[in-house]
Amino acid sequence: MTETIKSRAAVAWGPGQPLSIEEVDVMPPQAGEVRIRVIASGVCHTDAFTLSGDDPEGNFPAILGHEGGGIVESVGEGVTSLAVGDHVIPLYTPECGECKFCKSGKTNLCGKIRETQGKGLMPDGTSRFSKDGEPIFHYMGCSTFSEYTVLPEISLAKVNKTAPLEEVCLLGCGVTTGMGAVMNTAKVEEGATVAIFGLGGIGLSAVIGATMAKAGRIIAIDINESKFDLARQLGATDCINPKHYDKPIQEVIVELTDGGVDYSFECIGNVDVMRSALECCHKGWGESVIIGVAGAGQEISTRPFQLVTGRVWKGTAFGGVKGRSELPDYVERYLAGEFKLNDFITHTMGLDAINEAFDLMHRGESIRSVIHFDQ
Amino acid sequence: MTETIKSRAAVAWGPGQPLSIEEVDVMPPQAGEVRIRVIASGVCHTDAFTLSGDDPEGNFPAILGHEGGGIVESVGEGVTSLAVGDHVIPLYTPECGECKFCKSGKTNLCGKIRETQGKGLMPDGTSRFSKDGEPIFHYMGCSTFSEYTVLPEISLAKVNKTAPLEEVCLLGCGVTTGMGAVMNTAKVEEGATVAIFGLGGIGLSAVIGATMAKAGRIIAIDINESKFDLARQLGATDCINPKHYDKPIQEVIVELTDGGVDYSFECIGNVDVMRSALECCHKGWGESVIIGVAGAGQEISTRPFQLVTGRVWKGTAFGGVKGRSELPDYVERYLAGEFKLNDFITHTMGLDAINEAFDLMHRGESIRSVIHFDQ
Repeated sequence: MTETIKSRAAVAWGPGQPLSIEEVDVMPPQAGEVRIRVIASGVCHTDAFTLSGDDPEGNFPAILGHEGGGIVESVGEGVTSLAVGDHVIPLYTPECGECKFCKSGKTNLCGKIRETQGKGLMPDGTSRFSKDGEPIFHYMGCSTFSEYTVLPEISLAKVNKTAPLEEVCLLGCGVTTGMGAVMNTAKVEEGATVAIFGLGGIGLSAVIGATMAKAGRIIAIDINESKFDLARQLGATDCINPKHYDKPIQEVIVELTDGGVDYSFECIGNVDVMRSALECCHKGWGESVIIGVAGAGQEISTRPFQLVTGRVWKGTAFGGVKGRSELPDYVERYLAGEFKLNDFITHTMGLDAINEAFDLMHRGESIRSVIHFDQ
Repeated sequence: MTETIKSRAAVAWGPGQPLSIEEVDVMPPQAGEVRIRVIASGVCHTDAFTLSGDDPEGNFPAILGHEGGGIVESVGEGVTSLAVGDHVIPLYTPECGECKFCKSGKTNLCGKIRETQGKGLMPDGTSRFSKDGEPIFHYMGCSTFSEYTVLPEISLAKVNKTAPLEEVCLLGCGVTTGMGAVMNTAKVEEGATVAIFGLGGIGLSAVIGATMAKAGRIIAIDINESKFDLARQLGATDCINPKHYDKPIQEVIVELTDGGVDYSFECIGNVDVMRSALECCHKGWGESVIIGVAGAGQEISTRPFQLVTGRVWKGTAFGGVKGRSELPDYVERYLAGEFKLNDFITHTMGLDAINEAFDLMHRGESIRSVIHFDQ
């Protein structure tokens, strides 16, 4: 029988406060649960969004982090698909295989534990984290800013042990989201013309996805031109700064592409850019995929004529990728050299320096900072 | 060589005026053109919209009408796919087979003659209609409110001669639009749950399409309950009046369907209803198709979260049906008894009574009035 263990963790005590490095208690995994040792975790904009207090679903105190890689430390009763020592990527979008979402074959949005996960709790409605006997909330079902964390078995993808967890942890969120949006959600075909709005981690991953899909033309759009070199290196054929034009960027792109693009991706979370992304699509068939998460209460709009004349507006979460059945293959493709991850990792640091990772992100100086727990 | 002929026609001299029955001159078909004798024509809301003056693309004087059935009277130079005596349905969405739209295989929106058609002219930039030497504009490339009209060869679907043109004329617009939206654009599958907003001609046709697609549940929504009997007769399983509820209709439908519908169709042209139609779709996969045409300048909006969680927003024109290659099969399916058209024909009248058809429509008393030119 496993015991409660002590774990170093970065605790978010309240909105807007820096994270605090603490020694917390992590209970053993209960039935259907797994406790893992986190080896590395990326720091993502979504963590910063929740920490800011703007996330209406944010709970405090909590252990944030949702882009991790780890090793199974112990398993609870009834766990059959994972064993001690397995390498895993935590999934904020689980895959139970049993709910109507999983069974539909049409979506990766498993509904099994959505309610408790949204409340920062395990499926039984309690937390495995505490400090001095006071519970601390889980976050997105992952809480990877802790040396040890507990997840439901259905929230862990088992991956190839030869993959470096310090890199493939990025497949737990941003990189898979961008690549999956292109390859899974939009199913971009060879020769297609693609526009990608916003060249942060997700946008750059979408560029990679478009390159892997053999898109014929990949137009990358950002107001920060310092991103253009890397975008070109990853496969962008055109890099455009909207500030250089005195007309809406959708008109610029429609002219540049003889009628518009086949697929566009919004990777920022800006509702005005979402409209541009839709309206730069080609009449008759252009599809626009929203990846970015907009602020609470914000709305998108357009003239319905845009849709009646054949454009399609859709969105994606985690790139439409089913975590347990499809994510392991992303790791294999990474191992086969189909794409690189170290392009994204601009900084690495130990857990003690995690607030610096947030500062770098806020200042726009990082693509991804990765926390190494052994540093 | 064919000559200019005299034709009885309903001329729209200006916005907001009643149509005027006139004897007009109809020139012979030029190269690539066909002159037809119109046997019957439905009167559609789009004709009324243009006549009202609200259509920013409306040209006057014009001969309206776009939902017709006719017989080829003469053909111009180079016309090979049609011969005198062929039965045809005019197409406001032509199919040239050569432009990038037709070649894409992804849309029915042929681009070949779009510019001149939008200006009320034949592809060579002139009109075939005149009165006392003054030209009269064409309308939607069809102008079926004239005993004789001229169309490009690519704007005519050749159909089975045994089909009654007084009925299959409805396949020239409304009925195909509704059925095609369900079967072509959304590709509703057997057992699916469907919501149809608005039970005019298009909405009722969507009900038929959903019945033909073997949808498991067909929810018909209208504030005019007098439509419910026919909707049920055509296959609707639930008829709902939003006025009977004190919460948004999308919430009512989501509760009624354990999470939302698989497909929804907006058949009115109301941007608020378009939002309801999207938001009543099931998370993860629900698709909403806009069929109705909104007023100039109106916009649709929603929270992007609706799309990020897997709903898809699209639209359709002429039901996504390719006029020359696919419409003849709709006629065959009609002949095979798969659906009826006389349910839609609430009134028939001669050309002289055409203004009465508009009045009936404005008062909500007709589904379709069909003009019989031999009456």
